[in-house]
Amino acid sequence: MAGDTVIWVDGERASALPLPDRGLEFGDGLFETLLVRGAVPLFTQLHLARMQHGCRVLAFPPCDETLGEQLHRAAAYIGTRQWPFSALRITLTRGSGPRGYAPPREARPRIVISATRLGEASPGMAAPAMLCLANIRWPTQPALAGLKHLNRLEQVMAAREYRLAGADEAVMLDQQGRVVSVVAGNLFLSLDGRLLTAALDQCGIAGTRRDLVMRRWAPALGLEVVEGTLTLEQLEAADEAFFCNSLIGLRPVARFQQRSWTSHPVCEALYQQYQGDLS
Amino acid sequence: MAGDTVIWVDGERASALPLPDRGLEFGDGLFETLLVRGAVPLFTQLHLARMQHGCRVLAFPPCDETLGEQLHRAAAYIGTRQWPFSALRITLTRGSGPRGYAPPREARPRIVISATRLGEASPGMAAPAMLCLANIRWPTQPALAGLKHLNRLEQVMAAREYRLAGADEAVMLDQQGRVVSVVAGNLFLSLDGRLLTAALDQCGIAGTRRDLVMRRWAPALGLEVVEGTLTLEQLEAADEAFFCNSLIGLRPVARFQQRSWTSHPVCEALYQQYQGDLS
Repeated sequence: MAGDTVIWVDGERASALPLPDRGLEFGDGLFETLLVRGAVPLFTQLHLARMQHGCRVLAFPPCDETLGEQLHRAAAYIGTRQWPFSALRITLTRGSGPRGYAPPREARPRIVISATRLGEASPGMAAPAMLCLANIRWPTQPALAGLKHLNRLEQVMAAREYRLAGADEAVMLDQQGRVVSVVAGNLFLSLDGRLLTAALDQCGIAGTRRDLVMRRWAPALGLEVVEGTLTLEQLEAADEAFFCNSLIGLRPVARFQQRSWTSHPVCEALYQQYQGDLS
Repeated sequence: MAGDTVIWVDGERASALPLPDRGLEFGDGLFETLLVRGAVPLFTQLHLARMQHGCRVLAFPPCDETLGEQLHRAAAYIGTRQWPFSALRITLTRGSGPRGYAPPREARPRIVISATRLGEASPGMAAPAMLCLANIRWPTQPALAGLKHLNRLEQVMAAREYRLAGADEAVMLDQQGRVVSVVAGNLFLSLDGRLLTAALDQCGIAGTRRDLVMRRWAPALGLEVVEGTLTLEQLEAADEAFFCNSLIGLRPVARFQQRSWTSHPVCEALYQQYQGDLS
């Protein structure tokens, strides 16, 4: 695997993170996962905009220029490897600091970029997924909801649950038992001719592909998207369910507990929109 | 400062963390901060027991032996430096793994130990602290409440708040507005002859010194401790307030917003108990 992953720290090829680092110590940082086709990272602006928003919330100094530059150089290098598709993770931490929770007054953020070769050229939409229900729930935290920060223990535990259950993914609820998302993606329901997805004002991550579904791909199909409260009853009553993230695009749900779905016309139509944007 | 901090990774002196590491990627890990006097880490068993409990919750393989051994070696080295007191942080991560949230089936946890020289020999109880109220609140997460895991963004942001406010510490509330703790310590109120502290079933960290206050030091003084819901009204009505953590022991509160306290007999008596345990 080593040959199929390349890491840079602050723009230099590296295999280790200088210590101390507040990203390790406190999860004091943010990340993004981009799909790269050949040497081209896709939907870069959406990813960098989310990271910049996170920087403002966490009071990091702005670093869009440095980020953009290092991303560009990483992508150029990936191009030389001729990987058809890669996953590129950008991790931005608050860097080093003295002992203790308080961030240094003049933080010097550290950028870790990691690129991993994915499978062969685009295989099309992934096979419909089997979902279980995660026992662990999202934490309630309106101040950080939507951000892709480094505090992700709930998703780690939920991913462990679906692996143990032999499922492909897991539905995650909030503390009130409302449906929020899957572990690595946002969830949409097609119900009564509309798309429903969870409002992310208390927890969850506001995905770049969620944004594209809501603002571009669903409108292009004349589909209304409603952001609000989702219940397990609505999921079970849905005509169709699918989830989305940066690496898979969109993926239909085949089964959730006792409920199964055999056709996925809405997800397929949205996937066509997605593919159109890639070409 | 570099000369006054020493770092080991998996038992070897190091200045960097091998990548990838799930501690950095997801905050997938735990930590402990121990006070070391000379070459002797204090209350080691309480720290290691909390970490082992965390390992069970996060489904890490047990690693008490390795941890104890590396802690012992770090402490022996610190002894050679003749630092009167040191802060020793143990960070335990789930180590490396393939891309994605799901933990590897056979995780090989990584241990990072960092020792930092503290000030001169024990200065006695710290001066009473000025507290502000943090805007950021603890996240609601019963599944992880009490653990000292690596997802600590709320405390980072609250510490930034008290620094900006010119205070020494900040009171942190839960999502319902109940009093939980300060940023780096558990909070106790002395009210109507009893000690009150927050139950930590929804959020917060179950401190080792909190445990000692509740089970050893308060009982030794004939003081009853009640664990339950704390309100801001109770804090303002308290005869005395103090907080505790591993590095300071106990520290009285001089002021919180408009309320001030000028004498701290309960905290002083408990501090005597604490000092007695150190000698």
